[in-house]
Amino acid sequence: MHNLAINAERLWATIMETAEIGRTEKGGIKRLTLTDLDGRVRDWFAARCREAGCTVTVDEMGNIFAVRPGRNPDLAPITCGSHLDTQPTGGKFDGILGVLAGLEVVRTLNDVGFETEAPIMVVDWTNEEGSRFAPAMLASGVFAGAFTRDFAYDRRDREGARFADELARIGYRGEERVGTRKIGAFFELHIEQGPILEAEEKTIGIVTDAQGQRWYEVTLTGRESHAGTTPMSLRRDALLGAARIAVAVDAIARANAPLAVGTVGLMEVRPNSRNVIPGEVFFTVDLRHPDDAVLKSMDAALSTAIAEVATAGMEARVEEIWHFPAVRFDAGCVAAVRKATEDGGYSHRDIVSGAGHDACYVARVAPTSMIFVPCEGGISHNEIENAKPEDLAAGANVLLHAMVARAGA
Amino acid sequence: MHNLAINAERLWATIMETAEIGRTEKGGIKRLTLTDLDGRVRDWFAARCREAGCTVTVDEMGNIFAVRPGRNPDLAPITCGSHLDTQPTGGKFDGILGVLAGLEVVRTLNDVGFETEAPIMVVDWTNEEGSRFAPAMLASGVFAGAFTRDFAYDRRDREGARFADELARIGYRGEERVGTRKIGAFFELHIEQGPILEAEEKTIGIVTDAQGQRWYEVTLTGRESHAGTTPMSLRRDALLGAARIAVAVDAIARANAPLAVGTVGLMEVRPNSRNVIPGEVFFTVDLRHPDDAVLKSMDAALSTAIAEVATAGMEARVEEIWHFPAVRFDAGCVAAVRKATEDGGYSHRDIVSGAGHDACYVARVAPTSMIFVPCEGGISHNEIENAKPEDLAAGANVLLHAMVARAGA
Repeated sequence: MHNLAINAERLWATIMETAEIGRTEKGGIKRLTLTDLDGRVRDWFAARCREAGCTVTVDEMGNIFAVRPGRNPDLAPITCGSHLDTQPTGGKFDGILGVLAGLEVVRTLNDVGFETEAPIMVVDWTNEEGSRFAPAMLASGVFAGAFTRDFAYDRRDREGARFADELARIGYRGEERVGTRKIGAFFELHIEQGPILEAEEKTIGIVTDAQGQRWYEVTLTGRESHAGTTPMSLRRDALLGAARIAVAVDAIARANAPLAVGTVGLMEVRPNSRNVIPGEVFFTVDLRHPDDAVLKSMDAALSTAIAEVATAGMEARVEEIWHFPAVRFDAGCVAAVRKATEDGGYSHRDIVSGAGHDACYVARVAPTSMIFVPCEGGISHNEIENAKPEDLAAGANVLLHAMVARAGA
Repeated sequence: MHNLAINAERLWATIMETAEIGRTEKGGIKRLTLTDLDGRVRDWFAARCREAGCTVTVDEMGNIFAVRPGRNPDLAPITCGSHLDTQPTGGKFDGILGVLAGLEVVRTLNDVGFETEAPIMVVDWTNEEGSRFAPAMLASGVFAGAFTRDFAYDRRDREGARFADELARIGYRGEERVGTRKIGAFFELHIEQGPILEAEEKTIGIVTDAQGQRWYEVTLTGRESHAGTTPMSLRRDALLGAARIAVAVDAIARANAPLAVGTVGLMEVRPNSRNVIPGEVFFTVDLRHPDDAVLKSMDAALSTAIAEVATAGMEARVEEIWHFPAVRFDAGCVAAVRKATEDGGYSHRDIVSGAGHDACYVARVAPTSMIFVPCEGGISHNEIENAKPEDLAAGANVLLHAMVARAGA
């Protein structure tokens, strides 16, 4: 079994083939969920899975399940997958790798007639990106019970189109009740979307945890006044207050190094005129840490920092708009990934996922872990997203061996 | 002569009468320079000056000079004035007070048949606000030689209309060569546009200096990356850099207390998305101090602060887009204002003008100073701008007595 290896060229060619569906001028992909292009790539995927001998089923959320039978049909399938939808200016690998590497696993097993004890399953989760219908990871979230099906059905895009209607329109509103399908274990192969593996020249990231996330919206209100005639001592400068909080967010993250991150990504200044002291600033804060207790202490430190700024004649309105708890991936799945990595002789390091992935929700209902491979410059959600064929092949081989080990040879 | 006093009710009524020309729903004024409304208020002003026995002349820049004869026509007139144009959402007092208080001085002298040795002159300077045709204080600037006439003539508004054409259209492109008119001394009465007098319960601000101003535009370029997956140590967060500079600007101003001010009023973040580390931030810096040497040291401190931020893998592009040197007003004029204030028994303090005014340019060609009176909450450039009738009357009385003292009884 150790000589079993995926076909690196076929995997790359398959990725490049789907990259034509929604290809952008800059070489990325625009394939928003439940658009015609999403329908086309789904049709393509289902057809290739059937050709590879899989049974293909679609659930109420449009999640596609392709099953390669095992010797024991009573065992829950050992599963991998990710998503085929993209950001508006997305790349060729984010999500797509995890689905097509699954197809490559099936094809590789077929090539040598390899039988597994448990069935092997590949999943395309609907609407991971969340850029057309918020929130992200919607369908894996419904599958795992984080949202109700009807909540998801009623999501609307900016033009007012309803999720359930668009799902039916492209022919992917299936019959199978969402969440009923059993999963024996779930593995998601994904590009890192960050710079660590490349910087340390590691091929495989063994993902042990996913960061907990807390997102905030803050409105700081001071007093708009003349930049020339208002003495420093009488100012209530909302931008200065926001700047102090941005510096504090950085300090809070660094105080919880190396795993914490904290970001002020969006800021709107009013009236935003060069000779007027800003009267109001709206900004966001994004705090992440893989340990919920640490994340909670970061939340408390943020509250303190905001309160300190708000004493200076400033009023702060703070809303926590999202809280995604940290995920500790299944020890058995992590061990299977580690063994497959070591057996393959790949350089590696343990890593924490900073982004959310379908695996984060699936982990609530099945033993789950993830495999990361490097991407160029750590860049993702960008048309210039890139990765090396040999790294993708390494990741797919780790996926193959972890799944086979788990499914039973 | 000490019982000579302006008519407070007439002054207030006159201000309220002109406030009808371009009145906004919120009780402010929208009377942009060289519009039909500006033409109407100019016609009104010229007519009232003629009724008061003045000779009215218009120069090439549309500046209106109304002269009440003195006993000695060879003496350069003792002059006051300001501007009748407003911001798009301006108030009833900014600029207007300085012109109409001049008219009230003339009327008061007429009431008692008071003769002065030198003539008395009231000026309406064209386009002080600069909101239709940039820059601000354009016509007093041309008068004082800061800009050429033709530079001013070629300014265009956002619709492409040319300054010189609009000046002719409303009938105020005069014959008199700009800058040739002699001024014996110039006094500008103005609302403070800041909170100091009100906060300290002083009626009169004896303006000794106007702040030097340096305006900068800064573009900070870091690297756009994923807020979840980029470790703190690998970030080049342009917003964090801009925040540190905003905090430094505040510190630089406070280190030069009490007269220095420093403001970041405008900031634009790219891509401005809550889970993306900002790759580029554009912002402005406004530094002011009445001593050019101190202002220069503040400029150096700003450069240091920006350079410190830019070492961290960040690139900073800094442009000084405007430099207006500090103005020290004429000692004799300041003394005349001080004596008139003390003789009138008004509470007072010395004060520095944080904003630019026509007087700042006129000071280059004639002995000049300013008189400030409080405005409500220090608010100006705003339709809710407000002031108390008794404070305006006090300011006009100080203006009257300073001018008469200077003109000779």
